[in-house]
Amino acid sequence: MCSRESKLHDSPLAVVAELILLLSVILVAAKIGGEVSERYLKVPPVLGELGVGILISPFLLGGIHWFGGGAIFELPQDGGGLPVEPQLFFIAQLAAVVLLFEAGLETDREQFMKYVRPATAVAAGGVILPFVMGFGATVLLGFASMDSIDEMIPALFVGAVMTATSVGITARVLADIRRLDSPEGVTVLAGAVVDDVLGIIILAIVVGISEEGEVTAGSIALIFLKAVGFWLGLLVVGSLVSKYISRGVLWFKSAGGALVLALALAFIASAVAEIYFGLAMIIGAYTMGLALSSTELKHQVEDSMRSVNNFLVPIFFVVIGMQVDFTAFGAGDTSLASAIVFAVVLTLFAVISKLVGAGVPALFVGFNRVGATRIALGMLPRGEVALIIAGIGLTSGVIGKDIFGVVIVMTVVTTVVAPVFLIPAFRGGSGLKSGIVEAEIASGVVEEDLAGE
Amino acid sequence: MCSRESKLHDSPLAVVAELILLLSVILVAAKIGGEVSERYLKVPPVLGELGVGILISPFLLGGIHWFGGGAIFELPQDGGGLPVEPQLFFIAQLAAVVLLFEAGLETDREQFMKYVRPATAVAAGGVILPFVMGFGATVLLGFASMDSIDEMIPALFVGAVMTATSVGITARVLADIRRLDSPEGVTVLAGAVVDDVLGIIILAIVVGISEEGEVTAGSIALIFLKAVGFWLGLLVVGSLVSKYISRGVLWFKSAGGALVLALALAFIASAVAEIYFGLAMIIGAYTMGLALSSTELKHQVEDSMRSVNNFLVPIFFVVIGMQVDFTAFGAGDTSLASAIVFAVVLTLFAVISKLVGAGVPALFVGFNRVGATRIALGMLPRGEVALIIAGIGLTSGVIGKDIFGVVIVMTVVTTVVAPVFLIPAFRGGSGLKSGIVEAEIASGVVEEDLAGE
Repeated sequence: MCSRESKLHDSPLAVVAELILLLSVILVAAKIGGEVSERYLKVPPVLGELGVGILISPFLLGGIHWFGGGAIFELPQDGGGLPVEPQLFFIAQLAAVVLLFEAGLETDREQFMKYVRPATAVAAGGVILPFVMGFGATVLLGFASMDSIDEMIPALFVGAVMTATSVGITARVLADIRRLDSPEGVTVLAGAVVDDVLGIIILAIVVGISEEGEVTAGSIALIFLKAVGFWLGLLVVGSLVSKYISRGVLWFKSAGGALVLALALAFIASAVAEIYFGLAMIIGAYTMGLALSSTELKHQVEDSMRSVNNFLVPIFFVVIGMQVDFTAFGAGDTSLASAIVFAVVLTLFAVISKLVGAGVPALFVGFNRVGATRIALGMLPRGEVALIIAGIGLTSGVIGKDIFGVVIVMTVVTTVVAPVFLIPAFRGGSGLKSGIVEAEIASGVVEEDLAGE
Repeated sequence: MCSRESKLHDSPLAVVAELILLLSVILVAAKIGGEVSERYLKVPPVLGELGVGILISPFLLGGIHWFGGGAIFELPQDGGGLPVEPQLFFIAQLAAVVLLFEAGLETDREQFMKYVRPATAVAAGGVILPFVMGFGATVLLGFASMDSIDEMIPALFVGAVMTATSVGITARVLADIRRLDSPEGVTVLAGAVVDDVLGIIILAIVVGISEEGEVTAGSIALIFLKAVGFWLGLLVVGSLVSKYISRGVLWFKSAGGALVLALALAFIASAVAEIYFGLAMIIGAYTMGLALSSTELKHQVEDSMRSVNNFLVPIFFVVIGMQVDFTAFGAGDTSLASAIVFAVVLTLFAVISKLVGAGVPALFVGFNRVGATRIALGMLPRGEVALIIAGIGLTSGVIGKDIFGVVIVMTVVTTVVAPVFLIPAFRGGSGLKSGIVEAEIASGVVEEDLAGE
């Protein structure tokens, strides 16, 4: 950015200094965006953070060469499609892990276990219908065809993107309005876990088909067993030994010991989930939080965890916003008109398929219309998960810039729209069917009763 | 680390996951090292953190290929001599910035201004004598000669390394024992600021000579004016407008607003100091903290800042430990015996030159022997500043692996030894001369009285 005085201040410290400057831009932008949203627009701060992220991204203001100088946010040369340097992306992902760990800690574990069964129904519907509708829209509008497997692949990819659920935004909104451990909140978070397991299976199938032309039932079963096995194992074993973990961690008396070790546990769970079991990092972190949610450790770290989150989490949402590249829209060899039509149709399908796919099953497992709407809205955001799947599709060449741009629009709209409707949806009374108490949902009585009617 | 299931979990998220795993190793190691130090060895936790850093570095345990698998901490291919990936190094540096920002916030600004004058005397002595003794030792032991400028350059470089003061460790120890705003504590921190200004001038001269064969008085004056001007400007202007900054920041009502914006101010100050004015980042952060130290903002963020620090700071000290590469010792074309002699002599000189160079001036500006010893010990650690200067010298070829290894030993010993003696030194009574009150030091009366005796 300018010539340096001495070698002491040359790389690698100069690199750090420039990134710290960018980090301060992100933090200030996040707070301005969040404050304006909350104070003047009366919408959740997370929307403002996403908004300023889009605004300061390398694709908009951040990429402008102001007054002939350098751009604030250059697209990294070797960023693998990321809009920020790896150092800042790393901190953003760390933030997502800490956010979901805290969400897990604040969830009532017994409540969660109760709702795994209804959540499975919700997640299954919220995966199958979006996949089918995404596949259908792509074929019907001529962006793929059923003539051969090769020509079908873009449709399979769009279907896979449609199944994604990014629970970070929903968790943040529910935490803001203190409804994380409501029946609907727990169902959404449990649903996100199941959704992630189903999602990696679908993606594994799609990638398998696009690379090999086929997949075997055995390999799918293996992926399924590994993912479910890890998740259940972590939750069950973690819960059983959580008392001892808590005691062990609290043995440390030095300042911040409990906080640091709790975070280390979250980091280990998230990394192992991602590296060895194919699950998303945030699912690992959430599950670890859940396992520790009824321990003394939780009470010890609650306050300091909130401070760490206050610092880190805005970075995550601004960086998500920065991944939005509207210039990808209408690129490639498709006419702008057909891209717009595809974008509108896919976005509508994305909303409808999650609302119906996740909402209708909720009606059959004990929620009334209010509750089902809340749950379906909570499952709506595709977030960074969809952006990453789409990025992989683009990089590996199975989808073109045209489809990529359309998918971006769908992702941004579902992600930005969900919190706008979530907050009003959570006003008002119970989301459970009248006469139904929570225990019945858990026992499965309701489900069978209704099925038998 | 193992084959991945699906493309969703491929780079860049896989990279993040592996780094999160390494981060958890660093955090757990830090807490174990810190706890063992405090509980069983009765030494400050920071020593344990440095120790485990040395232990898990790529040069020791971290580099071993356990059971035929990969090493835990590989030396990064393009790390520019860093022992950890840029993402983790960035977080470590961020931690140092936040640590010194907090130290600045907790310093009494009026107290600080009082002690700038005595601190200047302390810093000047603590720069000149170490430079001369480092230069002398290198020439006397035959690692450089006065015959030509070219042959003199290694001695100039060793001298420059000897002048470094890394106040991070001292600040941490003084914060632990709550003596940051004692007269000695403030003098050390103010001395570190002056030391950094003098240090960049010396380094600029040394680098200028090694590159051009000469430097002009004008260019040195310019470097001096820029560094002092920025520092004074930030402190004076910052202090004057701190009330308004505080009010502006506290206008933000969203959760964590004050914390995030205070941190952003620290980041901006540290980045601007480094990029545009050649000062160390931690000096910028410390000065910003100092400017804001008597505001309402400080009280608002104190607690949450401590939580953020509890999480980040151990990372900094473990990563410093990881930079220690004992295999560099005795490398190159020097015999092991002469390397050992040089290391012992240089380490002794490093301790003596700071104790005398910083301690004796302290005696003349109102401190008694106890106070002077405390101050001199506080200025002892060379820390990461020296490691970075030495790394630059090695990379640019002006010093060889032999001298580099010797400098590492000197740095590690001074850095590790200082906290061991600092804590006992701060026990007991006042460090001021009897009959001298703080106000007299500030007014300069003492100095002139003593000078006139």
